[in-house]
This record gives sequence, structure tokens and C-alpha cells, in this order.
Amino acid sequence: MTTESVPLAIYLFTRLRHLGVDSVFGLPGDYNLKLLDHIEPSGLRWVGNCNELNAGYAADGYARIKGLGSLVTTFGVGELSALNAIAGAYAERAPVVHIVGTPPRATQDARALVHHTFNDGEFKHFDRIQAHVTVAQAVLNDSRSAPLQIDYVLQQCLIHCRPVRIAIPDDMPGPLVSAVQLGTPVSIPVSVAQTAVEPEALDTLLGCIYGSSRPMLLVDGESRAFGILDEIHAFVRKTKWPTFVTGFGRGLLTEELPNVHGVYTPKYKAFVESCDLVMCFGPHYSSSNTYLGETRPPGATVIDITATEIRTQGITFRDLPAKPFLQSLIRELDVSRISKHAPPLPGPNPLPMIQPADLVSQKNGFWPRLSRFFQEGDIILAETGTPGYGANDFMLPRHASLFRPVTWLSIGYMLPAALGASIAARDKLQELGSNSDTAKPRRTVILIGDGSFQLTAQEMSTIISQRLDVVIFLINNGGYTIERCIHGRDQFYNSISPWRYLKAPSMFGAPEDGGFAAHTWEIRTWADLENVLSDHRMLYGKGIRMAEVFMEKLDAPELLLGWLERQVKQDKRALA
Amino acid sequence: MTTESVPLAIYLFTRLRHLGVDSVFGLPGDYNLKLLDHIEPSGLRWVGNCNELNAGYAADGYARIKGLGSLVTTFGVGELSALNAIAGAYAERAPVVHIVGTPPRATQDARALVHHTFNDGEFKHFDRIQAHVTVAQAVLNDSRSAPLQIDYVLQQCLIHCRPVRIAIPDDMPGPLVSAVQLGTPVSIPVSVAQTAVEPEALDTLLGCIYGSSRPMLLVDGESRAFGILDEIHAFVRKTKWPTFVTGFGRGLLTEELPNVHGVYTPKYKAFVESCDLVMCFGPHYSSSNTYLGETRPPGATVIDITATEIRTQGITFRDLPAKPFLQSLIRELDVSRISKHAPPLPGPNPLPMIQPADLVSQKNGFWPRLSRFFQEGDIILAETGTPGYGANDFMLPRHASLFRPVTWLSIGYMLPAALGASIAARDKLQELGSNSDTAKPRRTVILIGDGSFQLTAQEMSTIISQRLDVVIFLINNGGYTIERCIHGRDQFYNSISPWRYLKAPSMFGAPEDGGFAAHTWEIRTWADLENVLSDHRMLYGKGIRMAEVFMEKLDAPELLLGWLERQVKQDKRALA
Repeated sequence: MTTESVPLAIYLFTRLRHLGVDSVFGLPGDYNLKLLDHIEPSGLRWVGNCNELNAGYAADGYARIKGLGSLVTTFGVGELSALNAIAGAYAERAPVVHIVGTPPRATQDARALVHHTFNDGEFKHFDRIQAHVTVAQAVLNDSRSAPLQIDYVLQQCLIHCRPVRIAIPDDMPGPLVSAVQLGTPVSIPVSVAQTAVEPEALDTLLGCIYGSSRPMLLVDGESRAFGILDEIHAFVRKTKWPTFVTGFGRGLLTEELPNVHGVYTPKYKAFVESCDLVMCFGPHYSSSNTYLGETRPPGATVIDITATEIRTQGITFRDLPAKPFLQSLIRELDVSRISKHAPPLPGPNPLPMIQPADLVSQKNGFWPRLSRFFQEGDIILAETGTPGYGANDFMLPRHASLFRPVTWLSIGYMLPAALGASIAARDKLQELGSNSDTAKPRRTVILIGDGSFQLTAQEMSTIISQRLDVVIFLINNGGYTIERCIHGRDQFYNSISPWRYLKAPSMFGAPEDGGFAAHTWEIRTWADLENVLSDHRMLYGKGIRMAEVFMEKLDAPELLLGWLERQVKQDKRALA
Repeated sequence: MTTESVPLAIYLFTRLRHLGVDSVFGLPGDYNLKLLDHIEPSGLRWVGNCNELNAGYAADGYARIKGLGSLVTTFGVGELSALNAIAGAYAERAPVVHIVGTPPRATQDARALVHHTFNDGEFKHFDRIQAHVTVAQAVLNDSRSAPLQIDYVLQQCLIHCRPVRIAIPDDMPGPLVSAVQLGTPVSIPVSVAQTAVEPEALDTLLGCIYGSSRPMLLVDGESRAFGILDEIHAFVRKTKWPTFVTGFGRGLLTEELPNVHGVYTPKYKAFVESCDLVMCFGPHYSSSNTYLGETRPPGATVIDITATEIRTQGITFRDLPAKPFLQSLIRELDVSRISKHAPPLPGPNPLPMIQPADLVSQKNGFWPRLSRFFQEGDIILAETGTPGYGANDFMLPRHASLFRPVTWLSIGYMLPAALGASIAARDKLQELGSNSDTAKPRRTVILIGDGSFQLTAQEMSTIISQRLDVVIFLINNGGYTIERCIHGRDQFYNSISPWRYLKAPSMFGAPEDGGFAAHTWEIRTWADLENVLSDHRMLYGKGIRMAEVFMEKLDAPELLLGWLERQVKQDKRALA
């Protein structure tokens, strides 16, 4: 960097660019327009969304693929609309930079009664609200401190892999700030060797490892946030131990290795409980990520590898960032001293027999049968609800990414997240560009129920106007089937307004002809499914393709059917 | 009430019923399903929305027509999505009861790691967030205190005419609570006569009133919240003084009285500044409600009548609720001692000449020309943006209600608010039912730009499935024209993805034939407008009717064109 000063907005956006952000999501608002003037001059692309919640979801989806995502909203109205998305990024560790344009300093200092306030002269309400869902915050109202404030919050975002908020008064994008620091990258601090703790932790772990006769590995989703995927792969390869992933961890680990057995579902419980050591990487033991706690491994056998802590049998070793610690562990590990075992494990359940004219159903294997449609490198998003549960039955192809419900479970997330993920993949491809022979465009596939689709449907229009290659399988089952399985299976409140879903691409502006023309299908029978999955336009087309899959309102994957059965039994008991 | 105990949910819902809530908005979520089981048994109607932000807006719209509105959401994901709507209700004083189903007490007490949390065992994050946008909060986890907690927060909602939040753990709807209090209505407390303050305040005000030679009245929008519309009408009639409304106050006052001159726009500024007394009822002096402060009346001449305070010339009399105080003032007022003046005031600006084949435009009077379409009793909603400014030029028919941008200005509000307002009007009609000859169904008319429409468009499907009579004029001008007027008139960020808007009713499930079949029109010329406004289906049809009005992207009402001109001049200076 040769210039000594740059406008504040350029400083911020340059930082984002250096951290891998190429596209920024959001909506204009009259407190952020001057800020947005600096987007293109910084070399960023603007992706305007339909609303701020969707922009937040898109930035989250982008972050999970590209390592960092960002959105710009306006004071109050805009930023509060995005709050649920930011909270989800917090819960599931997506590093999102939420930039908010706020009223000019003169307005705030004067406590003026202006729009987007409570008409009370108070401008800090939203700072306080946003602090609940972010790991760091900055209000940039002094050009001297702004660069360090920016660097600090961005580093916090990277360290914790969680959202941060930066508020910029409307008169601040322009003032010049020192650009000296731009020469020094913002990054996660280099680890200091904890000479007092690390040897003891290594000794303890190696003791557990060498002493185990039936060890296994479990890869959970926070591993992505800790940046330890390479180390995990090395460990899985080196030990050859039986390895599972959680729902959250799925897609992070190559499932082609012979010792990797896919998702730890309850059917593997007996095996897991027979192990005397479970090394869990990036644990995230929420009920929704552990089959309501059923697949949480028994505490006495577990070693948890978290961001900076190793926990085992009541002992916690702190200040040990996961990445360098795992590197040490792998280096120290003497494979000649570890147990080997490759127990016979149950394979996938056999699929029920079906006839082409039968109606498709989840209980007869819709989700596993859909898997064959997936291609190498696909980004697959299975929305909270029946698709999310169905996703545990997928066969995942190589280099696929899978988004599925983890803990936040905000229905409506997946469609805008698909927009973000798809843009991230395209940005990555452009970055690789001519440097790579193997880089190929990635397809994005969304599996979503009708109820969830209704929350954020309009973002389909951004997918269309951005000319992204997105396939949507929409399950039309008349409402919130997952809620029906939990409670109130015939209740009015689990129904939704009926839409003509296949008209959506056209309504949202899809081209009617040319390479990006939208294609739509109805699927009612297995034969329909077969036809659609082998349709050349579906397999290799461009732009948006959408299939509406009709299902019974009480059709669901096996696990949910179990809940439903329990509900029916309870009701019968209540009536008896 | 004869039963001595009722389930807690029934207690709450019965209270809502008694306070005039007939329909409740919201979405199911697995922490509120058991709560929702009590909706219909309480005699409430459930109106399921497409998403929670929309549910919040709908409850706000309902509250502004019916006096109280309510929505039910689920913990975390649902309630945070509604936050922006609740904040808007706070800013503009709509009494909304936000009921949130939360995890069962056992889960919370155990600090269990469950879905819809940050996976941190902490269940109070959202209580804290919601406290920023509500005037009172209750967490109902004890059946002994729940009734009083409910009564307290509902009374706060009424008193302040602002939202409250009630959190109900998933195991609490069923437990029985004492029903004894249900016999005593929740209401705004009866005023205590402030014997020390009131006589002095009355003396001071009457002194100002009798001493004024050029007095006037200004009716602002918080008057609705203070329940003083009858008193204001009496005062306007008794004094016969020149009277204006603000944008926020529009629709609260009969504009047929000869001394009522409509909205106080800048063209009346000279007159207002020539007055030596401005009595302002329910003042709300935000920049967006005062033409950027231009029409805020000069402080030295103003008497502000607020919720419980009278403010004039640096003196504030407190603890004087507006309603009884105004009743005393009207009683004491000796009309023989007040000045009368009926100055000549400029009438509406003459409309430019137009030809039938000319393209419609805002600068040539689209909004005032549209007014003739309005019917007695219409509920008219003019979205933030050019329609909101245009609404100041409407002729309002009798008994019309007008929603226009005030201070929160959250684009996307009006469509779901129209749903809520329309349901409220229908509920009111059913209540009146056979008791009234004059009660007639009210039509709802939405005026909205394409940019705003995209934020919450899906709620059209609820309007359709509820079979409401709603007319939509959608301005298609390629994006956020109001932002273009403010800054960045040709900038990329003020553009939106193009939709085929008139396909929306069909996509969102409107019947294709029968009495509720949707009708759509395109309007490009004045002749088109004429045809649509005289079309029998548009005037008297049922269900949804939608006209897409094509306009230039830089076409706007006069005031905004002034801003645009300033922008062009600035840019020219910058280039020179």
C-alpha cells in the first residue's frame, strides 16, 4: 500500500477484500447510500437483496463457503430485520460482518428527532441490541481510531468465526484515515506455544490414545470454524479408526475413506457406546445435532477438541488453539502403539420396494433415492423440516458442501443462504480462474418444504437476476409437516396458504427463453421423479430449475414418523 | 366469570378477547404449538402469516384500527424476525402484544443445549433484546403470579399504546391459574384529579387562549394513542379556529369541517408562523413528520398536549392525562372570550394539464388524481417512498383511515399492515353485526412502490386466503426512487431485480374464477388510469385487485423532485 491515507469506507472495504470477500449483500437506505458509493471503487460487487433478513442469510451462506461474508443495512429498520440471520450466524459460527449505515454524527450529537428512530433522540438502542448477537462491535465516529477499531472487530470475527457489527455514521465514509495498517494483514494471531500446558495435554491425550482398545473419531461442525479440517483429515488417515460425522459436520470430511461411516445416527449407538475412546473434533452437542441427545457420546470416553480447549474426563486444558495443537499431536503420534479395529457396521438401510406408478413418499426413501442426482462439487441445502432430516440419508458426492439444520433452525434460511453460497462459489471460481485446471462451476441444489419456502421466497428473484445455477426441489405437503410430527398433526395452525409454486420463477423474473430460461416440473410418482432426475435440462441446464414434489401432509422420514406415532398414542391414551 | 381457575393460556387469550382482539397473527413453532391449541377454544381466530416480520406488521395494522393487536411467535428465530415490526409499533405507538412460546421450564432450568439457542445454555438473550422495543415484559413461569403479570403488561400496553412482550414456556399454557381477576377488566387507570397542578395548568392555558389574537390548532398522530379524538373534535368545533393535521395525524380528524385545512405542508408555513398560538395535540415532531423540521411550529407559540404533560413556553405541567384534562379545558372554555379568525388560505395547487395519451406521472398529479377512486370508509395505506409523500395530496373521504410513513419508515410495512387492518375492519363489522344499520364492509387500498413490495410480497397470499377485499396500486419504476431522490440517482444499488408483478396474485393462490377471482391491470397512460378507475370490477369487486402503474425511475412528487434537483446541482458543482 503506497497511499498514506484513504477514505474510511475504502479502508473497511479493502480489508474485506483482503479477507476474501468479493461480493457484499444488502439493501440501500438513506443512512448508507454514501457508504455504498465506495463499494465498486473498492473492487467489491454489490448484490442487492429483497429484504434484510434475506441479505443476512445470504451473507451467512457466503461466509460458510468463502470464509467471510458481509452485508450492509441501514440504521434501525434494516439492521433489526437482519437480526435473526445474524443470531443464526452466531449460533452456528458463520463469520459475518454486518455493516450498518447510521445517521450523521451531527444528527446524533444533537439528539435530533429523525426517521428510523423511536423519536426520542436516542441513537444507541440498536447498538445495544446488536451486541447480543455479535462477538465484537465498533461505532466509527472518529477517523483516528477507526482503522484499529475495524482491524480489531474483523480479527474477532475471524477468531470466533462469529458475526460482528460495524456502525458507520452517514458522514463518515468519506473522511480520510491512515492507510498504514493496510500493509499488515488482519488474521488470527499466531499461537504462542503454551510450554506449561501443551506437554501435559499431549501426554494426557497420547496416554488415552495408546491405552484405548476400541477408539473412534467423531467430526462435528465447529471444526470448520476452527480451521482444522486438514488436520482432521490427516488424523483420520493416520489412525484409520472408525470415524463418523454429525449432521453439522457432514460435508466437511471426505466420506470416501474406508474408515469413514457417514452420519452418526442412533443405529450406530451400540457401536459408539462400545468404544472406550471417542475423540470429537469441534463438538456442538445441541439436541438438534444429536438426535435429541441420543447420539451425544458418553462423557467418560470423550476427548473434546474445541477452539482453544481440550476437555477429557473432567480436565480442561486451556489456551491450546486447536490447529497447532492437532499438528503437534499428529507429529507425536506413534501409530505402532495405537489399536486398530474395523468392526462390521450396519450399512444403509435397504430401501423399500416401489413401483413407478406409486406416489413418491419420504417413508419409502425419497431422500436417499434423490441422492443419485447429486454431482461432484454440488452445494446442497436441505431446509429445516423434513428435508433436513432426510439429508442424513443422502449419499454425498466428492467435494460437495451440505447445509442442513443444526441448532438455530430458522425456517426460510436455506433459499437466501443458497444465493449466498452460490455467489461465493462463483467468486471462488473467478479467483482461481486460469490458475486452476480443475476448477469447475458448482451447482446449487435446494431441498425445501412449502412452509419454509414461503418465508423468504422472494430471494429467488435475486438468484434469477444473478444468473446462478440453482435447482429447487420444493415439497408441497400443505404446511409445516415437521410441526405436525411434533404436535398438533391436524391442527389449523400447521396449515399454510396454498400457492402455485411453479409460477414463482416466472413471477420472479426468470427469462422465458434462451440459455437461462427457467424450467419447472411436477413430481407425483416415482416415474415422474425418474423422468425429472434424468432430464438433461435438470442435470446440465443453466439458471433456475424447479420441481414441485407432491407429498402427503403426514409423510416424513422415519425418525419423525416415530414422533408422530408417539403423538397418536398419547392422544389415544388421553381419549381412553 | 364463574370458574375459579382456567389454564394460563385461556386466561391470557380471554384478556385479549376482552380488550377487543378477535384475530391473532403469527406462525407456529415447536415451542408455541401447545399454546396455539388454546387459540380457538378462547374464541380467537388464528391468521397464519408467511413469516414473523409480516405477522408483526399485520398485528400493528390491526392494532391501529381495532385498538389492540397481537401475534404469537416462537423463541429466538421467530421473535427476532418480528423485532423490526415491534420496534416500529414502539416508534409510532401501536399497541401490540407479542406472545412468544419459549422452551419448557425444565429445559431452561437445566440450561440444556437445545435448538433455537446459541447452544450456550443461556435462555435470557432474547428477553433482553425484546426489552429494548417494548414498554413492559413478562416471563410466565409461575402459575401464581402469571395473572397479575399478564394484567400488568396489558395495562402498560394500553397506557403507553406501545408493544409489550409475554414469554410463555412450552409447559405453561396448561397449568391452571386463578380466574378471579378476569371479572375485573384491564383498562387505563382512572385519572386522579391533580388538585395541585390542574388548576394552575388550566389557568395558564386559558390565559394563553384568551390572550391570543391569531390562534390555530394542529392535530398530530399521537392523539390516536392518547384516546383524545373525541375531545379534539369537540375543541375544533367549539373554537372554530383554523386547524391543520400532520401527515401522522391525517385521517384522525374529519376534514369536512370548514375550519379544517388538511395537512400542514410548507406552503402554509407563513400562515402558521403568523399565528401567536399553536395548540398541538399528540405532537410527534420527527423530521419525517415535519417536512425535515420545516413545519415544526415555532416553539414560543406552541402548547403541546402530550400523554400526561402540557408543555408551553418552557413550563411543563406533569401528571395530567390528556383526555380528562382536555375535558376540563373544554368545559372551562368561554368561547365569548376567544379570538375568531378565518384567514384566506391557499387551496390545493392546480393540477397540470394532461392528455389521455400522455404517460402517467407523479409530477403531473398522479396522486391527487387517484383520490377520486377512494370511497367512504376506505382504509388507505401509502407505503414509505413516493406514495407516502403523494398521500399528502389526497382528498380523503369520510371515515377513511390513512396509513402513511411517519417516523419508523420501514419499507415493506404496508402490505402486511393492510392485511392486519383489513382483518381488523372485518372483525369490527362482525362485532357490530346486526346492531348497526350503517356498518358497511370497508375496502383496503394499498399504494406501494416496486422496491417496497419486494420486501414482504408473500403476505399477499394471506390476504388472498383470508378473502379480503384489497386493491393494490403498484408503482413500477425500477427500484428505490425515494433513495434516488436523496442520493445516488443513477447508482446500481438503487436498482432491484425485475419481477412480473401482475403474476403475483395467481402465484400466491388467488382463485382464477368465481367472485373472488383476481383482476389485474397495467396502467401507462392517463387514459389507462381512467379506464381502471372506472372499471366496475376495480370499484366494486371482491378479493384482490392489482394495477401495475409504470413510471419513470426519477418521477416523484414535487418535494422529492426538489431534492433531486439539489443533487444534480451539487454534482454539477463538483464537476465544475
